[in-house]
Amino acid sequence: MEHELKEFIKKCDIAIRLEDFDSLMNYYTDDAILVIKPGMIARGKEEIKSAFIKIAKYFNNSLIPTQGEMIILEAGDTALVISQTLLVSDKNGSEYSMDRRATYVFKKSRQGEWLCAIDNSYGTDLINE
Amino acid sequence: MEHELKEFIKKCDIAIRLEDFDSLMNYYTDDAILVIKPGMIARGKEEIKSAFIKIAKYFNNSLIPTQGEMIILEAGDTALVISQTLLVSDKNGSEYSMDRRATYVFKKSRQGEWLCAIDNSYGTDLINE
Repeated sequence: MEHELKEFIKKCDIAIRLEDFDSLMNYYTDDAILVIKPGMIARGKEEIKSAFIKIAKYFNNSLIPTQGEMIILEAGDTALVISQTLLVSDKNGSEYSMDRRATYVFKKSRQGEWLCAIDNSYGTDLINE
Repeated sequence: MEHELKEFIKKCDIAIRLEDFDSLMNYYTDDAILVIKPGMIARGKEEIKSAFIKIAKYFNNSLIPTQGEMIILEAGDTALVISQTLLVSDKNGSEYSMDRRATYVFKKSRQGEWLCAIDNSYGTDLINE
């Protein structure tokens, strides 16, 4: 059986592909952050949803994210996921990398439910760029 | 003023340099994990302390860790730190990189104190190696 966080991230990727951003927001903590691009951060569900709408538009509403190799580092109610994130779209010449090594931080709620707290698809490329 | 996590990581680096692993363990959560090397993880303070003793010995008890560029992504009581971690020692030809892009996850306790939950100095190099 796959790790529950792998299944969770699959659900997120499907919601992004379907542009079902209301469902997607259920997968984030209230004070989650999303690294939109290096130096630009969305804070909280409202800003994150708005950012995803703009990202979808940037990619001509054709963005399909999938995950390749993935490592899950779990420590109690906190987890760091290191994942090869592949982006496909019909946009030619995106100025952003479409093959990333992402870092996602998840928190488990008291109800035992994982939620994304920090969504940084740029991984360690945020430094030394 | 520097971010409190930057100061915190400095204290950790000093404790590692001084091989003061009892103090160092105060900076970790009870269920923290340390990535010793790709594929090998220490869980909990006892294993982490034991790993640090072995790491110190591996580097001829001369290891000096410092941090270069650092980005702190804070979301409520959780933070992901992306940091250029530089290791210096008098050991010639370590089989491990001495210039890393590390990922550290911190949790804030109810008392407002940050503690390290996930210590992964290898960052995203854990995949696609």
